Amino acid sequence: MAHTHTAFEGKNALKLESGQTLGPITQCYTTFGSLNATKSNAILVCHALTGDADADIWWKTLIGPGKAVDTNRYFIVCANVIGGCKGSTGPSSINPETDQPYGSDFPVITIGDMVNAQYNLMEHLNIPYWLSVIGGSMGGMQALEWAASYPDKVRSCIPLAATAQVSPTAIAFDAIGRSAISSDPNFNKGHFYGKAIPQKGLATARMIAHITYLSEQSIDSKFGRKLQDKSEYGYHFDTDFQIESYLKYQGDKFVDRFDANTYLYLTKAISYFDMPRKYGSLEKAFSATQAKFLVIAITTDWLYTPAQSKEFVKSLIRLDKEVTYAEMDSMNGHDAFLLEQPDLTDLVQLFLEKLNDN
Amino acid sequence: MAHTHTAFEGKNALKLESGQTLGPITQCYTTFGSLNATKSNAILVCHALTGDADADIWWKTLIGPGKAVDTNRYFIVCANVIGGCKGSTGPSSINPETDQPYGSDFPVITIGDMVNAQYNLMEHLNIPYWLSVIGGSMGGMQALEWAASYPDKVRSCIPLAATAQVSPTAIAFDAIGRSAISSDPNFNKGHFYGKAIPQKGLATARMIAHITYLSEQSIDSKFGRKLQDKSEYGYHFDTDFQIESYLKYQGDKFVDRFDANTYLYLTKAISYFDMPRKYGSLEKAFSATQAKFLVIAITTDWLYTPAQSKEFVKSLIRLDKEVTYAEMDSMNGHDAFLLEQPDLTDLVQLFLEKLNDN
Repeated sequence: MAHTHTAFEGKNALKLESGQTLGPITQCYTTFGSLNATKSNAILVCHALTGDADADIWWKTLIGPGKAVDTNRYFIVCANVIGGCKGSTGPSSINPETDQPYGSDFPVITIGDMVNAQYNLMEHLNIPYWLSVIGGSMGGMQALEWAASYPDKVRSCIPLAATAQVSPTAIAFDAIGRSAISSDPNFNKGHFYGKAIPQKGLATARMIAHITYLSEQSIDSKFGRKLQDKSEYGYHFDTDFQIESYLKYQGDKFVDRFDANTYLYLTKAISYFDMPRKYGSLEKAFSATQAKFLVIAITTDWLYTPAQSKEFVKSLIRLDKEVTYAEMDSMNGHDAFLLEQPDLTDLVQLFLEKLNDN
Repeated sequence: MAHTHTAFEGKNALKLESGQTLGPITQCYTTFGSLNATKSNAILVCHALTGDADADIWWKTLIGPGKAVDTNRYFIVCANVIGGCKGSTGPSSINPETDQPYGSDFPVITIGDMVNAQYNLMEHLNIPYWLSVIGGSMGGMQALEWAASYPDKVRSCIPLAATAQVSPTAIAFDAIGRSAISSDPNFNKGHFYGKAIPQKGLATARMIAHITYLSEQSIDSKFGRKLQDKSEYGYHFDTDFQIESYLKYQGDKFVDRFDANTYLYLTKAISYFDMPRKYGSLEKAFSATQAKFLVIAITTDWLYTPAQSKEFVKSLIRLDKEVTYAEMDSMNGHDAFLLEQPDLTDLVQLFLEKLNDN
């Protein structure tokens, strides 16, 4: 697919919600398709915790020529978030003050900070507004934040498997994951670059999180109590069950492609995401937005639940905003937003087409 | 309360389900009340993963003078399970072959092995049968195993918050906990006695497990997104939220009272617990039992769910066994079986009184 990888070097430091500043920062982004003459076909795709700018790869079910988010029709932008480890400024980037990687000297960032950085990118690209901002999970949080903080720059907003206020249960799982990373003897207070990395801690964090991305039904159906490569219990502490083997594989594979500090910073940003807290209430958050909403929740998502999606949907209805809420019936849990779901892709396609017709 | 702590030193080695042998073993047990002349009032209480023989302390809501399991009326026995770290032979005990603690040379044990050890204790105490075998969680698994493997020695069986077949989701959480322990650099393949213990790994395992003992509702209601000793986000990686602080406290407190190897062995025994696998089917498991059953599940228990209790209840009904199934409406999740629950204690009291009347 025709796409362009680019690094956008900002000119000014980014003012963060914490009061600190960061940068000037780099944002690594990918674009697909072309901006039309009226600049009315730009769509921002926001990635989830472990994603990157290559939205055509991790969201291939949705994005591509002739697909719901049609690269022949729309100009699609996806940037690696700040704090990330896929090209944008993050804890593994060089801190200009020390000429060493930031490590734990990187400031704590928020979903709002990610969105503010993306706003600078939008200006840089001379995009007057987004036809749509789309994202799942942490990407959906960014989409909601866009609608709230740039109310006249977002024509539509499609949060999938998202929440406007991360639950204490989700905070708990992420906190344990962070604790596993910072307990790893290789963690070295975040200054492990060029040395042994805290891979066991990161693998543990990934395994914990991975359970929350599945559902009890999908675990039962995919793995059940099936043993891995054996018919009898091993009576040892190696892997006995397929679910153990699967999680171990997920953990081990993850450490090769992800930075442990990025994991800390992005999960912290997620834990902090609380629109009622930031804006006073959900109604205040969305009062000025000009966006139409397509909100999609997954029936078996117990991380960012349908009930949580309905919370902000109710606020949007109270505000007389145009909102469509769809609950996708899937047994695949939170991760279903990334999987082949004809109902889901049809909905997104129709929603975008209707916008375009206006 | 009048109670007696005793160590029972077995004379013979215990044959384990793995084919290995263990011992002769020690079982540390506590008794409450007195065995009556007809030896018809003995009740065995089986403890859960992190419990011990002092059932009057950890199950004070249920056990005591005038309480549901009335120490004035019944002769109550509770033994620390084999594999444990509270007096019975476990991985921290001295291996007679090496004169060193077993560590990882301790054999893998099963719920069935725990029950077989308890059977030896029963014979030693000259108890002809149990009026009831009662337990919650892993204790409930032992109660079910008693009814299946000693069908004429158990007059009644009260499994609470239990399952006859541990789910792959529960296996997954326990496997991650074990992985956190064995990843700890102090683990030293299980030979850490007399040295630094794998306390960070054990704390992580406890934190993971602790979430599964709660429910989303109880986490929301007890903690919500409340901050710990502050009104604003800290924008650092110390504890921000009360739920983080609570879990950290639970993890840190746990390492002072529990052995990391026992955690490995007992969670492995739990993961292996699968009565359909061992007996061919639930019907085959319970076909010969003479026990009446009071089965109690907790509505918000997502670790050993009401659906899982209903599975073996259905088998008992098919077998024409006498069974009462009660679902306790509690928002407290799995751990509710240990909490003050008047409905629960009333049920147990009435059930036991009716047995006694016969």
